[in-house]
Parts: sequence; C-alpha cells; structure tokens
Amino acid sequence: MDKRDNIVSMSEWRIRLHEIIFEADTKSGKTFDIILLISILLSVITVLLDSVKYINAEIGNILFIAEWFFTILFSVEYVLRIISTKKAFKYIFSFYGVIDLLAILPTYLSLVLTGSQFLIVIRILRLLRVFRVLKLARYVQASRYLLIALKQSRHKITVFIEVVLALVIIMGSFMYLIEGPENGFTSIPQSIYWAIVTLTTVGYGDIAPATVLGQVLASVIMIIGYSIIAVPTGIITVEMAMAKSQLINTQVCSNCNKSNHDNDAEYCKYCGTKL
Amino acid sequence: MDKRDNIVSMSEWRIRLHEIIFEADTKSGKTFDIILLISILLSVITVLLDSVKYINAEIGNILFIAEWFFTILFSVEYVLRIISTKKAFKYIFSFYGVIDLLAILPTYLSLVLTGSQFLIVIRILRLLRVFRVLKLARYVQASRYLLIALKQSRHKITVFIEVVLALVIIMGSFMYLIEGPENGFTSIPQSIYWAIVTLTTVGYGDIAPATVLGQVLASVIMIIGYSIIAVPTGIITVEMAMAKSQLINTQVCSNCNKSNHDNDAEYCKYCGTKL
Amino acid sequence: MDKRDNIVSMSEWRIRLHEIIFEADTKSGKTFDIILLISILLSVITVLLDSVKYINAEIGNILFIAEWFFTILFSVEYVLRIISTKKAFKYIFSFYGVIDLLAILPTYLSLVLTGSQFLIVIRILRLLRVFRVLKLARYVQASRYLLIALKQSRHKITVFIEVVLALVIIMGSFMYLIEGPENGFTSIPQSIYWAIVTLTTVGYGDIAPATVLGQVLASVIMIIGYSIIAVPTGIITVEMAMAKSQLINTQVCSNCNKSNHDNDAEYCKYCGTKL
Amino acid sequence: MDKRDNIVSMSEWRIRLHEIIFEADTKSGKTFDIILLISILLSVITVLLDSVKYINAEIGNILFIAEWFFTILFSVEYVLRIISTKKAFKYIFSFYGVIDLLAILPTYLSLVLTGSQFLIVIRILRLLRVFRVLKLARYVQASRYLLIALKQSRHKITVFIEVVLALVIIMGSFMYLIEGPENGFTSIPQSIYWAIVTLTTVGYGDIAPATVLGQVLASVIMIIGYSIIAVPTGIITVEMAMAKSQLINTQVCSNCNKSNHDNDAEYCKYCGTKL
Repeated sequence: MDKRDNIVSMSEWRIRLHEIIFEADTKSGKTFDIILLISILLSVITVLLDSVKYINAEIGNILFIAEWFFTILFSVEYVLRIISTKKAFKYIFSFYGVIDLLAILPTYLSLVLTGSQFLIVIRILRLLRVFRVLKLARYVQASRYLLIALKQSRHKITVFIEVVLALVIIMGSFMYLIEGPENGFTSIPQSIYWAIVTLTTVGYGDIAPATVLGQVLASVIMIIGYSIIAVPTGIITVEMAMAKSQLINTQVCSNCNKSNHDNDAEYCKYCGTKL
Repeated sequence: MDKRDNIVSMSEWRIRLHEIIFEADTKSGKTFDIILLISILLSVITVLLDSVKYINAEIGNILFIAEWFFTILFSVEYVLRIISTKKAFKYIFSFYGVIDLLAILPTYLSLVLTGSQFLIVIRILRLLRVFRVLKLARYVQASRYLLIALKQSRHKITVFIEVVLALVIIMGSFMYLIEGPENGFTSIPQSIYWAIVTLTTVGYGDIAPATVLGQVLASVIMIIGYSIIAVPTGIITVEMAMAKSQLINTQVCSNCNKSNHDNDAEYCKYCGTKL
Repeated sequence: MDKRDNIVSMSEWRIRLHEIIFEADTKSGKTFDIILLISILLSVITVLLDSVKYINAEIGNILFIAEWFFTILFSVEYVLRIISTKKAFKYIFSFYGVIDLLAILPTYLSLVLTGSQFLIVIRILRLLRVFRVLKLARYVQASRYLLIALKQSRHKITVFIEVVLALVIIMGSFMYLIEGPENGFTSIPQSIYWAIVTLTTVGYGDIAPATVLGQVLASVIMIIGYSIIAVPTGIITVEMAMAKSQLINTQVCSNCNKSNHDNDAEYCKYCGTKL
Repeated sequence: MDKRDNIVSMSEWRIRLHEIIFEADTKSGKTFDIILLISILLSVITVLLDSVKYINAEIGNILFIAEWFFTILFSVEYVLRIISTKKAFKYIFSFYGVIDLLAILPTYLSLVLTGSQFLIVIRILRLLRVFRVLKLARYVQASRYLLIALKQSRHKITVFIEVVLALVIIMGSFMYLIEGPENGFTSIPQSIYWAIVTLTTVGYGDIAPATVLGQVLASVIMIIGYSIIAVPTGIITVEMAMAKSQLINTQVCSNCNKSNHDNDAEYCKYCGTKL
C-alpha cells in the first residue's frame, strides 16, 4: 500500500464519519443521531437522579459509572467531530461546538472541584439539535420565526428592561426607608429583590410589607407590574405579526407587479395571471 | 307477528331512540339533553361533596347511593347510545365515546380500588357537549375559532415550551449548586420544580432563595419569566388575527369550489377565475 | 293664586331641579355634580376608616355621624331625582338608578343587621358617573371602545372560562388523590381552590404539593396556566383591533366608493375626491 | 486686557464648557459623558452597599466618603451646567434638570434627616440620559415608539385602572365581611390590599381566605384578574401596531407638507394632491 492510497482511504473514512455524525440523510446517520439524542436524555436524567439524596444513597455507584460512561462517550464523539470535519476551528467556536465542549467539561472538573458535575445539565442544550438533525422542517421554521420576532424586538425590550430595573431600584429604596429592617427589608439590595418579586407578580411572600404606607406603595408596584406586562407583550406581538407577513410571501406578480400573495397561491389574486 | 315485522319495529324503536339521545331538534330530544346535563352537574357535585370530611360523615350514605344511581343511569345511557347508533364502533372510539366510558368506569373501579371513585369528575368533560346538543351556534363557532388558532400555533408553542423546559432545567441546576440543601433546594428535580414555580410567576414561597447570589439568579429568572410570557401571547394573538380574517371571508370560487380567499382578492388564487 | 299657576310654578321648580341634578351644562349643575362626587369619595373613605379597629376606637362616633349624614344626603338626592324626572320608573330601574338605591340601603339595613353598613362601599360605583357628568368625552369614548371589544369577545371568553373550570376541577381531583389530606389537600373543593390559585399564577403558598408526583402535576398546571393566559389576551387584542378599525371610520368616498379613511381625512386617499 | 476681551474669553470658556457637558459630538464631550455615566453607576452602588449592615460595619467610612465625593462632584457639575447654558431657567425646570437636582439634594438633607441619603438612588434616572448623550439612535427611536403607544393608550388605561380600583374596593369589603379579622382580614383597607395582591396575581400568601365562601370569592377574583390582564395588553398591542405603521410611513405631501399618510394612500388625505 503506497502512501497516496493511505491518504485516500483516510479521507474516505473521514467523509464516511462526517456523513454519520454531521448529517442525517443516510440510514446510519439517522441512527447515530437518534442514539445520540437518547444518550443525552439518559445522561441528564442520571445527573438529576444523582442529586436526590436517597436515590444517591441507594444506587449512587451505578449513577457514578453511568455519568463517566456518558462523558467518555461524548468526549469520543467530540474528538470524532473535530477529526471528521474539514473546518475544525469553525466547528469548535460555533454555537453547537461550544455547547458540545461545555457538556463534557464539568465531569472532568468534578475531579478537582466537587459538585461541578451537576453543571453537565447544560447537555440539555444539545437537544436543541434534535430539530436540525431530524430535519423537522416545521419546527425549524417556527424557531426561525420566533428568532426573527425576538431579534426585531431587542432594542425595545432592552429599553423596557432598563425602565423596569430603574423602577425596582427606586421603589426598593423607598420600601427600605418605609418598612426598614424590622419588617424583613434588611438592606436596599434585599428590598430591590423584593420589588422584583412583586413587580413580576411572582410574590413569594417570604418578605411582605407590614406598615400601611408600605402596603400602599406595594399596591402601586403591583398594579404597575400588572399593567406594564402589556408592554413586552405588545412589542413581541407586533413584531410577530410583521415577521409573519414577511414569511408569508415576497412573490411578485409578473403582470401587475403586486405582491402580498399567500404561500399556496398559484394565480395572482389581483389580475388572475399565473404566478 | 312474523320475524320481519319484528325487525322493522325494532328499527323504528332504534331510530326513535337515536333521535332522542343523539339529536336535539325534537322536543323529547331537547328534554333528554337538558335532563342529561343536569344529571352530570349533580353527579359531579355529589363527588365534590363526598370528598369533604364532615359532609361525608353527615350524609355519606345518601351521597354513596346518589353516586351509584348516577353511574347506573349513565351506564344505561351508554349502552343505549351504542345500541341506537348504526356506527357503534365509530361512536365508542370517538372523543365523546371515550369520555362517556371514562365517566362511568371509576365508580365500578372503586369496588376494587378505594379512592378511584373521585376520578369520575372526568364527567365534567361531558358538559362540553352542552354547546353541541343545545345548538348554541355562536359558542360552537367560538370554540372552532379557538381550536383553529391553537392548532396553527402548535409548532411554535412546542418550540417555546421546549426552550422553557431547557431553561428551568439549567437554572434549577445552578440554583441547586448555589443554594444547596440547607436552603430548601434539596435536589436538582426539586430545584427545577422551584424554577418552574418562579418562571411561571406562580411563586408559592415554600422554597425561596436565601443567599445573595441565589436571589440575583432568581431575579434574572423572574424577569425572564415576566418578559417571555409575551411569546406565547404574541403567537396566539397573531394566529387568532389570521383565523379571524379566514373565518370572515367564506367566498367560494365558482370554478374550482375552493374557499380561503383574502378579502381583497378579485381572482381565485388557485385557478385564476374571476370571483 | 289659582291652581294652574301652582302647577306651573311646580313644573318650573322641577325643570330647574332636573337641570341641576341630571345635567352638567349649567354652572349650578356642574357645581352640584362636583359636590356630589366629593361627597361620594368622602363617604367611602368614612366606611374604610370605620372598619379599622384603632381608628374606630378613637373617632368612631364622628364616623358614625358622618355615615348617617352622607346616607341621608344621598337619600334626599335619590328622592329629588325621582321627583324631578318625568320618567321616574325608567330612572329607578336604570343601571345608575339601581346603584343609587343600593348606595343608601346598607346603612338603613345596619339598624337590623350589624356589619351590613360596610356594603355601602358599593357607592364607589356611583363615581363611574364622573365621566358622564363632567363630559369627559375622551374617557367616555375609551369606555365605549373597551365595552365593544369585551362584548364582541364574550362568547370566546365564555368558552375559555368553561375550559379553565373543567381543567381545574379535573386537576384538583387528581391532586386530591395524589397528595391527600395529609399535605393540605383536605377535600376536592379545597384542591380545586388550590388548582385555581396555581393556574392563575397567584400562588399563595398556603397549600403546596409535597410529593414528587404532586409537584410534577403542579408543574404541568403552572406551565398550562402560564401559556393559556395567551388565549384571552389574543381574543381581546384581536377584538380591540377590530373595534378600533370600526371606530376609525365608516365614511365612503362618493367617487370610488372606497372606505377605510382616517377620521381626520378630508380627501379620499385613493382618488383624491373631497369627502 | 480690556473688559470686552474678558467677556469674549468668558463666552468662549462657556461655549467650550457647554460643548463638553451638553454635547457628545466632540471627543472631550464623549469622554465627559462616559465618565459621568460611570460615576452615576458607582455612586448608586455605593448607596446600595451602604445599606447592607455587615458591609456598612466593615467599610462604612469609605462609603461615607465616596457618597460625599460623588455628591460634591455632581453638585459642581450641576452648577457648571447652569453656568454654561444660555437658558439656565429652561434647564433647571426641564425633566433632566429636576432629576439632576434631586440626585444631589438627599445627601445634603441627610445632615439634618438621617436615612434620607438613601433617596439618592434617584440618581439612577440620570442613566436614562445614556441613550441621548451616546446618540444611540435605535434606542432613542425605540423609546419614542414606546412613548407614543403609551401616550395613545392613556385614556383607555385610565378607565381600566379605575374599574380595577372600584373592583378591589368592593371585593375587599365583601371579603372583610365574609372572612373577618379572625382570618387576617383585620380591616377594609387591609382587605383591599389583599384584593390587589390577589387580582394582580402576585399572591404573597401573608393573608389567605380560610372559609369556604371566602375561597369561592377569592377564586372569582383570581379568574377575573387572570382574564382582564388581557385588557391593558390588548390596548397597548393595538396602539403599538398603530404607532408602528405611523412610524413606517414618513411620506410628506408636496403641497401641504403634512405627513401621517397610510401606506396604501395615493392622494394626500388633507388636500387631495397626488403623493
């Protein structure tokens, strides 16, 4: 076997590997993806169970082995991904590449830092790949649609969040002055935390105003929080309506030059010309 | 009386029964439906009262008899429904057929499994029939409209729910590491439960963060939960606006008989015929 | 003085009274309305203060006198309203007529039934008159707009509320079976109450699931409640958009017959003809 | 140096100062703004930390000095702003002028009134200037857009808030009569506070109904609160959609110079000129 042959056979091996790992069109590629998705789910469940005291006491050993088994499995997969792709760096620094790395690091880290193994729940993000690999076109389109709407809303949402933050800082400080440490508002940061809990209508009740003035101000915060939730909702609804109409169609009639046709339209609805 | 006559009279009897049970156009059919709806309501109230300790101690016997009375009544009705319809199997496996069965099973099951009789509250679903049988056209249309909007939203809502689930799993794990069992975050599943309680702005307060870092992360979760509720709202609002405009225009093309045209359409978008 | 003259002078007296009480165009009419609104506010505040123990202990006598003073004042006004209007019966059974009566009855009732005087807070509804009497046109229009949208949504909202009620009844019953009296779910009605508290994302935390299965089901209820709030929001948003466009204009161009003009339009935007 | 020269040099000095303080086009102006923004942030953090007991015990002295340092810095800046602008009064009574003053007063006030220094968190509002000074056009536009939508909604939101207030006053009074002081509803104002906590779906749980009738009424309030949040959301969404379409079309009539035309307009709606 001469050297050149060796290279070709290596290349073929890499191409085949790339097909299996990165694509889902071939039968083996699809099988690989499904096994991967199941492994991810199982490994996350392993971590969840491991954190429950009495389950850990019972089958902690098995879970420990399973965790390492999945981590080594994913490590091998990660290395194979780097080897099989031509643009190794592009993959490593891509969104999925970073998540793939973060999904194996915590277990190794747990050798030096106890508890860090729980961070591998970040593996759950790998599941987002499910739509892509399984070519679930409708879900991919739905995701894209949501992303467009969110992206278009980002400036307005940023302004909104900043106003909310300014509001809770000021309201929290007032509540600290009104209620004081004796009613659980031990410091301004603590009061700001309470203001967030109240404005977002979560309302744990671990801290609650006790004075009349405090309850009046709290009522004001609640009604503000109850009303201004309309703002992000309005922003995103309007952007979604825009995104929808954009996605609908950009096809233009060759006869009358009018657009705004539905996706299933075959004839122009204004002049009857075939599209 | 020869055999044939007998069959004819049976058929007539079945047709009459079908009219009474399945339809609500005749006077006796309407009376039957109203008695049925009242019986369903009464039987559900019976179960609710039966579960209250001091009421059970007082009139438990009467409620026990009432429960069996209604169950036998509905069982007879169920059998009559099967007998009177020509397509017995279609009915049995239809949505209402399954509910009708589930609405009587629990009482029989309670003979072997104590407590299961409470499951007959599923009878309440039979009440959904009220709109159909009483021909409340406006409500039927309203239901259909809501169903169309929800059906159209299902892919986007699915993506949204999955992102929410990924979020609470990751956030819950972080909170477990930050707060730990000493502050009530006894395990990751427990922390995920807390993250759901917080993100959905329910906020029981049975578990609440006590450390500074925990409260900061909790604040982030709250503000995220407070903001992203805009997403499903936006999705459904847009789909409802679409469903509305679709329901409004019911124009049908004279050539291809297809409907679903826009309000400003002058030509059929499927075949190009002038509308 | 002959009899006829007497009638005329009485009539004049009634017309003058009607002007003052029912209208707000004249100076005395406006003064009357403003005094009335202030009296309503003061009388409601009187009731609120009266219910606070330590204020009642201090100035209970003064509040008692004030309550009776306002009640007699409003009683006299009520009688004058009946006398001064030609259509006495129409007024008595109108929305405001009923509220005017309900706003004085509780104080008289308190002579025989202690505590009922607190019901006169219903007087606050008389304040709704403020928009009408003070001719605040913009607010009247805003109210009308909101009422149109709500009226158009009523069938859909009814269907929604019924589905929610069916949901909480079934979910509540399941929780009763899962959690049981030992975790605070003492009866099915109590569990249904808990399910409402959870689904509406209020989350008092007075009752909270303690078992794993209970927390899983609770999580499902929370996510459902968090998501389906989108439904009434979508319904009302769409109806408001419709109401808006209806209020905007129904003017039709005399030249091209196109409608959809803005309120401030003076020329048709499609053909340039003066509207 | 003659007098006139002196004035000119002073003027030049003022113009230069004005450039640095009020504008952000020059390099020194931008530097000034960035230093200002950082100072504001630092001074707010100082106040937050100062309120935390154990941090105050540790480094209270340093924080005390920092607070006075920033206050004197901002005081100097405030004076320079007044000096450098030609329209001193206009600045003083402008929105930012008032905030600039309020942002320094509390520290001076704390000399006579302990605790008032915490009010300087109002400085956080100065940060709103960040968008303006740094010429973040997109954020400025987003803010303007939100303000337009909120301004257009103000009448409807006012009506909504008033209905909500009437609702919680009446509901609160009923709950006071039903539950009474023994269940924590010690007075009508307290019950109204509870009704607000419930209607806005905050739900602290510090007060919760204990009687059956109270829980039924509470359930009604919750479902109302859960449903009517749709109203402000609908209002603002519709107004945002309007604001959006207004912002998009900025076409101006060549004849009458009026803008505000619809997207499909072909003729000016004010004067009938072809656009």
